[in-house]
Amino acid sequence: MSALKGNVMFGQSGGPSAVINSSAAGVFTEALKSDAMKNVYGAQHGIVGILHEDFIDIRKESPDEIARLRGTPASILGSCRYKLEDADKNPADYERLLEVFKKYDIRYFFYNGGNDSMDTCDKVSKYLQRAGYECRVVGVPKTIDNDLAVTDHTPGYGSAAKFVATTAMEVYLDSRVYDRGMVIVLEVMGRHAGWLTAATALASAKGFGPELIYLPEMPFHVDQMLNDVERLYTRSQNVMIAVSEGVRTPDGKIIPESIGTVEVDAFGHKQMGGTASVLAGRIGQELGCKVRGIELSLLQRSASHIASGIDIDEAFLAGQEAVRAALAGKTDVMVGFERPASGPYKTGIRLIPLEQVANLEKMVPRAWINEAGNHVLNPFIEYALPLIQGEPQQDKEDSLPRFARFKKIQAGNRDI
Amino acid sequence: MSALKGNVMFGQSGGPSAVINSSAAGVFTEALKSDAMKNVYGAQHGIVGILHEDFIDIRKESPDEIARLRGTPASILGSCRYKLEDADKNPADYERLLEVFKKYDIRYFFYNGGNDSMDTCDKVSKYLQRAGYECRVVGVPKTIDNDLAVTDHTPGYGSAAKFVATTAMEVYLDSRVYDRGMVIVLEVMGRHAGWLTAATALASAKGFGPELIYLPEMPFHVDQMLNDVERLYTRSQNVMIAVSEGVRTPDGKIIPESIGTVEVDAFGHKQMGGTASVLAGRIGQELGCKVRGIELSLLQRSASHIASGIDIDEAFLAGQEAVRAALAGKTDVMVGFERPASGPYKTGIRLIPLEQVANLEKMVPRAWINEAGNHVLNPFIEYALPLIQGEPQQDKEDSLPRFARFKKIQAGNRDI
Repeated sequence: MSALKGNVMFGQSGGPSAVINSSAAGVFTEALKSDAMKNVYGAQHGIVGILHEDFIDIRKESPDEIARLRGTPASILGSCRYKLEDADKNPADYERLLEVFKKYDIRYFFYNGGNDSMDTCDKVSKYLQRAGYECRVVGVPKTIDNDLAVTDHTPGYGSAAKFVATTAMEVYLDSRVYDRGMVIVLEVMGRHAGWLTAATALASAKGFGPELIYLPEMPFHVDQMLNDVERLYTRSQNVMIAVSEGVRTPDGKIIPESIGTVEVDAFGHKQMGGTASVLAGRIGQELGCKVRGIELSLLQRSASHIASGIDIDEAFLAGQEAVRAALAGKTDVMVGFERPASGPYKTGIRLIPLEQVANLEKMVPRAWINEAGNHVLNPFIEYALPLIQGEPQQDKEDSLPRFARFKKIQAGNRDI
Repeated sequence: MSALKGNVMFGQSGGPSAVINSSAAGVFTEALKSDAMKNVYGAQHGIVGILHEDFIDIRKESPDEIARLRGTPASILGSCRYKLEDADKNPADYERLLEVFKKYDIRYFFYNGGNDSMDTCDKVSKYLQRAGYECRVVGVPKTIDNDLAVTDHTPGYGSAAKFVATTAMEVYLDSRVYDRGMVIVLEVMGRHAGWLTAATALASAKGFGPELIYLPEMPFHVDQMLNDVERLYTRSQNVMIAVSEGVRTPDGKIIPESIGTVEVDAFGHKQMGGTASVLAGRIGQELGCKVRGIELSLLQRSASHIASGIDIDEAFLAGQEAVRAALAGKTDVMVGFERPASGPYKTGIRLIPLEQVANLEKMVPRAWINEAGNHVLNPFIEYALPLIQGEPQQDKEDSLPRFARFKKIQAGNRDI
C-alpha cells in the first residue's frame, strides 16, 4: 500500500469524556511519527473549525503537554454539536470542506466522537470519494454512553462507569449513617441507552449500591417505581435507586417533561437533567419519607481524577490505531474494540465500516436486565468490570490535577 | 497522673465526612494499646446508642478492618442528630447516661463531631462532674464545614476541599468545550460558613475555577450576582460561579426559601440544597443564556477516593491524641490543631476547653474575601492548600474501594 503523503486534520465532537483527549494524544503521537504525514492540524470545535479554517498546529505543542492529555478531561480542541445535513440537500458545507481540504492538502481526516460524529464522518468520507478527492477518513470512537454499534465498548465509558460506581458506593454509605430512613435517587446520564446507569450495579455487587436500577431500555412506570421503593423502605428504611436521565413513561416522555417542557438541540435531542429531583419529590410526597435526589451531572463525564487506567490506554490506542489504519490505506472505517469470547479480558481492535455505526444506538440487552425491569444481572457485571480496571494516569501539582496546557498556535486562515 | 482504669465509650455524631472513620481508627488503635482501658465500646448512632445501651465491642473487630477505616467514608458506627437539652431543663437523658456509664464502668468518653457534638460533649462532661462520677471526656473534631472555633482547621475539611477543588477544575474544562456560551452554578455545602465554597478558589488559582465565589459570610444580593455574571458573560461567554448553599438574601432567607418553604431539623437547622437550581433558573431567565446548576450534594462529604492524605493522617492523629490526653488526665477538652505562625505547614496539636468550642461557628475572615464580596483572596489559598495535600489511603478491590466491614458484635443490653 502506497504511503499517501499529505497533511492531517483531527477534530473532536459531541459531549466530552474523561478520556477523549487520550485519543487525541494517540492520534497526535502516532501521526507525528509518520513521514507521510507532514502537518498535523487540530480543528477547533470539530467540523465547525474546519469550515472556518480555524485549526492549530500540533507540531508546535510540547510532547510533555501532549502526554498530559491522558489525564486531561473535556476536549482540548473544543467540541461542537453542528449537524451536517445530507450532501444532496445542502451541499454548501461539503463544498466548503473540500475547498479547505484541498487548500491545506488534507489527506488524512480523523474525527473523534459518538454516533452523530460517525455519521458526520461517513457523510464527509462519501462526499470526498464522490468528488474524487483522495482522503483517508477514520473515526475514533468516544462516548460515556457506550451506545456505539458493533464495537464491544467505547472509550469514555469505562472511566464514567468507574466514577459512577465509586460514587454510588460512597453515597450509599453516607446515606445510611442516621437512625432514621432515607431514600436516595441517583440520576445518571444516558439519553437512550442504560449502560452508564447500569454501572451502579458494580457498586451493588460490592454490597454498597442501589437496590433498584431503572434503565431507559425498559418503559418506566412511576407507580411501579413507587411500589418498589415502598416495599424496600418498609423492610429496611433505606433505599437507593439509580435512574437514567433517559427513562421514559409509556407515552414516551422523559420525567422532567411530566412537569414542563424541555429544550431540544440541533440534533433534535432533548435537554436532559432534572429526573432525580422530580422523582425524589414524588417519592417524598407519596411515602412521606426523607428523600434526596442527586444528579451526577457533568461530574460523571469529566472525572479524570478517577478515570479507568484501561480506558485511558484503550482511548490512546484507538487514536494510534486510527492513524495506523489510515497509513495502511484504510478509509471510511471506525476503530472498534472486541474481546475474547471466553477467558480473561483482553483488548482487541477491529475496524468497522462507518455506515455500520453511524446514527445507530446499542442498547443494554434485555437478557441482562432482571425480569421486573428494576435491576441488572450478572452478565452485565462480567461485561463492565474489566473496563473500569487500573488507576488514572494524571500528573498532579499541589495535589490537584495538572491539566495539559496547549499553546494553540493558529495554522489556518481563520475567518471567524 | 494516675492511670484511671475503666472502659471506653466512643461515638460519632453529626454529618459524616470522608475521614471521620479515620478518627475512629485513631481512637480504637490507641485505646486498644492501653492497659488502663479494658473494654472499648462503639456507640451505635452516637448518644442515642448510649441511651439505649446499643454499642459494639471494638476488641472483636479485626485490626485489618480497623485500619481500613482510614479509607472508608461516612460513619462506621452510625450517626445521630439527637439534641440533648440542658440538664436543668430535662435531666432524664443525663440520668440515663450516668446510669449506663456506671453500669458499664465507662471512664473514658470520646465523642467525634462538630460544634453541636462538642456542645453535647461539654454538657455530658459537666453533668458527670457535678454528679461526682469520674469520667474523662474528650472531643474529637470533625466537620467538612471547617467552622469549629479556636482550632486552626478541622479534620474532614481538607478532603472535602480537595474533592470540591478537583471537581471544579474538571467541570470548568468540561463546560467550556462548546462553541457557544455556558454558565455553571456550582452549589457547595456550608450552612453558615463559607470555607468549603471558598475551596473552589484553589481551582481558580490553577486557572480552571470559578470567576465568581459567593460565601454565606456576605449578604447575597441576587441582582448583584446577575450583574456580575452578565458582565463576565458578555466578555467571554463562559462563566462559572460557586455559591454556598447557605448564602442568604439581606432579609435572612436562604435561596430555596425565596420560592417556597424548607424543612427544619432537631437542631433548628434548615434543610439545605436547591440553591444552584434556583439561581441557574434566574440566570437563564434574565440573561437568556445556557446555564447549568450543579449541586455537589453528598458527594463532597463522602468522596474518600480523593481524600487528602494529610487530612486522613490528622483525623487519625486527632483520635490518638484524644486517647493520650485522657490517659494523661485531661478532660472536658477537644483536640484541636495549630500551625506555625510562619514557614511551611506542619501539623500541631493543642487541647481546647470544650466550652470554647461548643456551639460557636468560625467564619471566613472578611479580610480573606475580596472587596466586592464575590471571590476570595490569596491568604485563603495559603491557608487551605496545605490541607489538601497527599494521596488517599484506600484499599481497592477490582479497582473499586474496599470499605471496612465491621462484625458489630453487640456489647450492650440493647433496649431498642
